[in-house]
Amino acid sequence: MDEIILSVNLVWVMLGTILVFFMHAGFAMVEAGFTRSKNAVNIIMKNFLTISLGGIVYFLCGYAIMFGDTAGGIFGTSGFALHGVDDLSFFIFQTMFAATGATILSGAVAERTNIFAYVGVIILMSLLVYPVVGHWVWSGQGWLTDLGFIDFAGSTVVHLTGAIAAFVAAVMVGPRLGKYENGHVNVITGHSIPLGALGVFLLWFGWFGFNGASTLAADPELVPSVIANTFFAAAAGVVATAFYTKFRYGHIDGSLTLNGALAGLVGITAGAANVSIVGSMMIGLIAAPLLVEGVRFIEWKLKVDDPVGAIAVHGICGVWGTLAVGLFDIGGQGLFYGGGFSLLGVQAIGVIATIAWVSVSVAAGLFIIKAIVPLRVSAEEEVAGLDVIEHGAPAYEFQDIFKGSAVRGETFAHRLTHFGKAHNNVHEEHV
Amino acid sequence: MDEIILSVNLVWVMLGTILVFFMHAGFAMVEAGFTRSKNAVNIIMKNFLTISLGGIVYFLCGYAIMFGDTAGGIFGTSGFALHGVDDLSFFIFQTMFAATGATILSGAVAERTNIFAYVGVIILMSLLVYPVVGHWVWSGQGWLTDLGFIDFAGSTVVHLTGAIAAFVAAVMVGPRLGKYENGHVNVITGHSIPLGALGVFLLWFGWFGFNGASTLAADPELVPSVIANTFFAAAAGVVATAFYTKFRYGHIDGSLTLNGALAGLVGITAGAANVSIVGSMMIGLIAAPLLVEGVRFIEWKLKVDDPVGAIAVHGICGVWGTLAVGLFDIGGQGLFYGGGFSLLGVQAIGVIATIAWVSVSVAAGLFIIKAIVPLRVSAEEEVAGLDVIEHGAPAYEFQDIFKGSAVRGETFAHRLTHFGKAHNNVHEEHV
Amino acid sequence: MDEIILSVNLVWVMLGTILVFFMHAGFAMVEAGFTRSKNAVNIIMKNFLTISLGGIVYFLCGYAIMFGDTAGGIFGTSGFALHGVDDLSFFIFQTMFAATGATILSGAVAERTNIFAYVGVIILMSLLVYPVVGHWVWSGQGWLTDLGFIDFAGSTVVHLTGAIAAFVAAVMVGPRLGKYENGHVNVITGHSIPLGALGVFLLWFGWFGFNGASTLAADPELVPSVIANTFFAAAAGVVATAFYTKFRYGHIDGSLTLNGALAGLVGITAGAANVSIVGSMMIGLIAAPLLVEGVRFIEWKLKVDDPVGAIAVHGICGVWGTLAVGLFDIGGQGLFYGGGFSLLGVQAIGVIATIAWVSVSVAAGLFIIKAIVPLRVSAEEEVAGLDVIEHGAPAYEFQDIFKGSAVRGETFAHRLTHFGKAHNNVHEEHV
Repeated sequence: MDEIILSVNLVWVMLGTILVFFMHAGFAMVEAGFTRSKNAVNIIMKNFLTISLGGIVYFLCGYAIMFGDTAGGIFGTSGFALHGVDDLSFFIFQTMFAATGATILSGAVAERTNIFAYVGVIILMSLLVYPVVGHWVWSGQGWLTDLGFIDFAGSTVVHLTGAIAAFVAAVMVGPRLGKYENGHVNVITGHSIPLGALGVFLLWFGWFGFNGASTLAADPELVPSVIANTFFAAAAGVVATAFYTKFRYGHIDGSLTLNGALAGLVGITAGAANVSIVGSMMIGLIAAPLLVEGVRFIEWKLKVDDPVGAIAVHGICGVWGTLAVGLFDIGGQGLFYGGGFSLLGVQAIGVIATIAWVSVSVAAGLFIIKAIVPLRVSAEEEVAGLDVIEHGAPAYEFQDIFKGSAVRGETFAHRLTHFGKAHNNVHEEHV
Repeated sequence: MDEIILSVNLVWVMLGTILVFFMHAGFAMVEAGFTRSKNAVNIIMKNFLTISLGGIVYFLCGYAIMFGDTAGGIFGTSGFALHGVDDLSFFIFQTMFAATGATILSGAVAERTNIFAYVGVIILMSLLVYPVVGHWVWSGQGWLTDLGFIDFAGSTVVHLTGAIAAFVAAVMVGPRLGKYENGHVNVITGHSIPLGALGVFLLWFGWFGFNGASTLAADPELVPSVIANTFFAAAAGVVATAFYTKFRYGHIDGSLTLNGALAGLVGITAGAANVSIVGSMMIGLIAAPLLVEGVRFIEWKLKVDDPVGAIAVHGICGVWGTLAVGLFDIGGQGLFYGGGFSLLGVQAIGVIATIAWVSVSVAAGLFIIKAIVPLRVSAEEEVAGLDVIEHGAPAYEFQDIFKGSAVRGETFAHRLTHFGKAHNNVHEEHV
Repeated sequence: MDEIILSVNLVWVMLGTILVFFMHAGFAMVEAGFTRSKNAVNIIMKNFLTISLGGIVYFLCGYAIMFGDTAGGIFGTSGFALHGVDDLSFFIFQTMFAATGATILSGAVAERTNIFAYVGVIILMSLLVYPVVGHWVWSGQGWLTDLGFIDFAGSTVVHLTGAIAAFVAAVMVGPRLGKYENGHVNVITGHSIPLGALGVFLLWFGWFGFNGASTLAADPELVPSVIANTFFAAAAGVVATAFYTKFRYGHIDGSLTLNGALAGLVGITAGAANVSIVGSMMIGLIAAPLLVEGVRFIEWKLKVDDPVGAIAVHGICGVWGTLAVGLFDIGGQGLFYGGGFSLLGVQAIGVIATIAWVSVSVAAGLFIIKAIVPLRVSAEEEVAGLDVIEHGAPAYEFQDIFKGSAVRGETFAHRLTHFGKAHNNVHEEHV
């Protein structure tokens, strides 16, 4: 009997594990689509290295620091390389979460960051920065757990952590060339909204595992509520962003509306198991203007160049989602349900502590990394694009000889004359 | 014990829920790929709004009209905003289905429809049109259920409903500029077959949840049969369409063969739990010529402009799939298994009633919408593309300076001279 | 009680089935992305036909030859068209595996193979070549099983089989025009790394079902280990390939690093249930240089033109993964765990037998196919691209009138004058 219960919960958690893994495909597509085509291979490589190297580092050290025997509620101290760890199901689920922090950062520093500096960031995040916050909240032994802090699936632990790291890194790496010139703030558009949209769908899809399997059991009461809340917060985020950008900018903005789904999802992550469907919609609804104004504030006022809007999506909406539990909790602690300000205060403490720890540790880490490798690529490389120089080939090569011409029923002779080697992607290799 | 059974069924239905959600990514990619790049952001925005706003409307009203206490077997009357509803698992699964009708429509009216008129259509479909048909068939209290109508996962309830709405809307909105000129029927090709193919794969993948979880339980007898039937109908649809288009047009047509998978899937949806694997293959096999000739009939004879072929795929194959249950049912009612014409007659009644209700209600709804906002964009906007005007940016911006040139081992100097701001996606913002 | 256990295992195996199906989307995107845009529709059509026709052929014959009553441990003889077969769950899971062999081949002979010759290959592989190897190893009655051969999820059965077929076919079809000229080995680059990267993510995602559900039960001990091993082998493959290509070629190579994930996945497939996490990382780590040098060896020394690197990924790493079980098995048979050379010898026998059978049967099959249809397209068609001639339309048509120009706040008048029919994808049809 117990064996069967284990099996059912296993299937649910493994499904969640696989879905959270797949979110890394979503991050890769979002970040590639929202940046320029000359840097698409580079950002994809960074995403592949994040989940891969991040996972290995987490196996070796991160998991131990997050879930090992506590040192004063601050960090764990046992279980390195899974020594003495029995529950592989829980471990592999957590591993998929772990690399997310660095991935959030990768979008914010896209298009100008040295990939080896970024490798340092992956190690820093998966080894130390994220596991420490995770220990505070999810180890069962952390000081924030003792205070009663609620962060069901990680508005703070994952998203705020990633966003603060992103903010610090974006400041230290500096803006892309051409972003801020002669007092102007220029718009640098991404190269493929369809790719970005696909990425958002992948993330939304994966988020059902991220939030859903954070129950760790196939609980017939809790799971449907978590799934429904996850959906409706994102849905409200999309609708609200579409109309808010129409009102604010005169058109339904494509990339902001896509980010609106993510804003809702980040917002509901802390409280997915604690709020009602109406509460989840309110969270998504309010996340929308926070996103739109947040993107503008960071880009125009703070003059921090975040190509994909990651800081606003994961940071501002991460704070909002964490605080929102203190407002909408239906278990008796939500302000709007008569619970007073107590939980809200605890949530604020968690937010502040996370911001403090992450900003200090990431800044320190980046200073060390900077002493070893440059944080940025050269200006020449940045202008030319990172793909060709760092990865040996551009992201795209279209044979466009037929483009825009009627292709049916004609002879091909006159077209073929245009075909040279170059148009056919044939390159002589010099070795 | 009962608790465990609940948990197992929960996992299966939640998996289905998540997969049906993901079908909306499939619709978005299919519709974007099969239309022009200048309208790609617009169709993606419509798909995001469909699942998002459609889900919210369904929560508020649609679910009540579909599954509430019946008014004479015609529509439901209780459970608005889930008042008194306990089973969130069933609700959220149904929510993912609900927006599908409007999404089918979005492809058929792509590239020229005003997005605010389309928002009206989303509300119309999710609030009233689809829930009423759903009530007839799936509420357990509907008049079609009383007659013995069989539509396991929605060849009629979802697909035919969506397609009839699509047909009425495509007629009322009118064809795209340039489609029908001086008596000519012009071909307007989509911009990315790979994107469309990805979308078809996403839909096929999601359809295993659409049909599979419509069992509502992890039944070891029924589920493998449903999954196998779903696969083999689509497989037969692909193979048959490939060879049929070779025979009909002289080449294996790319976009029609992709649609052939969908034709098979729509066809098997009504009878996935009622036919054998051979029956499912026959259904897919016959769906193929119906699709190819249907697309041609609608485009050339009826002169209705449906950019993605949605009316043929979901409508003609939806009718076929519904009637096919009356032919291939292995439970004793199929004509080919000695069951006589009785079920076939009932299936026909369901089809006719659905066509009548949907066409009248959608036409009426569109007249009301038309009184508030124009159904189409302006001709200037249609020519320029909807993306730039309605959403502030084009779908794609490639830096193609390196395209077609050998990129290895050369200096970049002569290329960099070609780089101006414009080639680098840097735009001065006028604010 | 037994019923519930059946249900839980059912959910796990059905999830695996659906995920393995989805791998075909991954193969399609990888093969399309890593080849030229002028042949993208063609390779996608081949992938759709592989899963579709391959599945049907497997239903009719392949399953019987693989799992029917044995003839001397060599092949099965009963169960054609599922006659007498009860377990649809196992059957449909196996069906999704079956088409994989042909799909691996499709990438290696991409861009020049006649689609009707390829249809012959699909039948050959799904009907005979793959099922015979499968019978040896997975039927419970095969001669390799009797020897103690271990191939948990198919490093040999699926991947080596596909790769040897690919090698034979690539030799017989010959290289693409322009690949080997005047003693030069030219590089022919793919057209979209992002599409290829998406495909790799889809494959990795699906592989959790491929390996995970090969347990055939939701075993709380075994499954998490299989999932973790699958992940860490791929992760090690990515990291090792990134650094190895940096060392070898001076840059982190984009397409090789993506293939590095697949190399690790192919490597761990045989031993996913038999090795530790550290063992899985070692397998992935060693797969990386094998991949990089293997690609080069096949392309430069053997002068076999494999556009997507399938032979190295699935063949060399398939052999490596199969042998690696003899090294890293933690059940007492691994060389490095004190198990001696016995299992290693058995694994080598399995590899050699598979290479012998597949190369002979595929060569014989291709000679027969060649007697019926040409293996290659004409040189004119190859130069023009297969899409336009064989499938009636190119893969892509972008309206790029706005590309590279500042799009905000300007009037559209001067741009619209550039719009002719051709730029708008409007073609007159000649019928």
